[in-house]
Amino acid sequence: MTSPAARSVDGRRERGARTRDAVLARAVAIASEHGLEGLSIGGLADDLGMSKSGLFAHFGSKEELQLAAVDAAREIFVQAVVEPVGDRRGVARVEALTAAFVDYIRRSVFPGGCFFAAAASEFDGRPGPVREAVVGNMLRWRAALQRALDQAVADGELRPDVDTARVAYEVGSLLSGVNADYQLTGDPIVFDYVTHSVRERLDGLRAR
Amino acid sequence: MTSPAARSVDGRRERGARTRDAVLARAVAIASEHGLEGLSIGGLADDLGMSKSGLFAHFGSKEELQLAAVDAAREIFVQAVVEPVGDRRGVARVEALTAAFVDYIRRSVFPGGCFFAAAASEFDGRPGPVREAVVGNMLRWRAALQRALDQAVADGELRPDVDTARVAYEVGSLLSGVNADYQLTGDPIVFDYVTHSVRERLDGLRAR
Repeated sequence: MTSPAARSVDGRRERGARTRDAVLARAVAIASEHGLEGLSIGGLADDLGMSKSGLFAHFGSKEELQLAAVDAAREIFVQAVVEPVGDRRGVARVEALTAAFVDYIRRSVFPGGCFFAAAASEFDGRPGPVREAVVGNMLRWRAALQRALDQAVADGELRPDVDTARVAYEVGSLLSGVNADYQLTGDPIVFDYVTHSVRERLDGLRAR
Repeated sequence: MTSPAARSVDGRRERGARTRDAVLARAVAIASEHGLEGLSIGGLADDLGMSKSGLFAHFGSKEELQLAAVDAAREIFVQAVVEPVGDRRGVARVEALTAAFVDYIRRSVFPGGCFFAAAASEFDGRPGPVREAVVGNMLRWRAALQRALDQAVADGELRPDVDTARVAYEVGSLLSGVNADYQLTGDPIVFDYVTHSVRERLDGLRAR
């Protein structure tokens, strides 16, 4: 049996977590359009009609808020791009990740385009924990592409001499290129480009 | 014969142009590290130990200063990446542009990495003349890659059915990927990656 006092603590924790999630959703949207440096506890408090001290209770500093936003954005990215591909393996997995990434850009999951491309460009010259978090996420994404390529080699779909690290960089660059292009030109032709380009590239590496 | 008065006017114009060039060189360096929004006439005047009114005489507004910086950066880019390839044509031109771009990133021609990648990410969500200037430069760079690919098709180096617009997007994305990667990880392996990737991609499109 749970005591009334414990239930009350649980209730407070739950409300706290819900508030934190709502605050982070807004923080991610702001950072996606105005950059992580555009995030401040004061500005976010104004935006949400909350007290600054209330927000400080959740995030002790601007840097903690930025790190929490990066983490929340990562969850959104994983949900949008990684989860839809399910347990596909190898070439089918790379193609499904490509399709899901294109969809993530097309649907403007983040209002300002790919959150991580923007954060990478913003923080590449600013050493510190936020930059480390952004680099870590980029490397994890690259590693996810490489793992799928490694499966393709292991399963005999791709030639054994394929440099999967390099091809992962290629696929990652083509996908980042879609985001950069679409944000600037608004021309959806890049969605077709990348789909064809990744397919053609993988076809060229098929085991015969 | 030129009158002393005309010579004096010429002298003032020349000094004015030299000052403008020096100011722009500093403006481009600042924008490359801190973004074009990090440029202000007041801040730049402080940085250079000049009067704010003197700078206003050269650039009437922050936006004019930003546009002048984009233009100065374009000249630096052309000098660093386009001029070294000389009159090479076709596949040799694409490979030379790739090598020159890699060198441009490796040498940190701009202290914060590729000026235009940073500007593109910064301004993709901010409509206006600065964004237009950045988009225009990106499209010109893409067109320069495509022209070289069109030459390669016309000269019979590449297959006639090659979609040169799409391959130009691919090469452009691979090169942007080098910049993004190197700024974040500092790992020079991407320089080898892109050189191999572009060569392999073009080899796959050769007319047989």
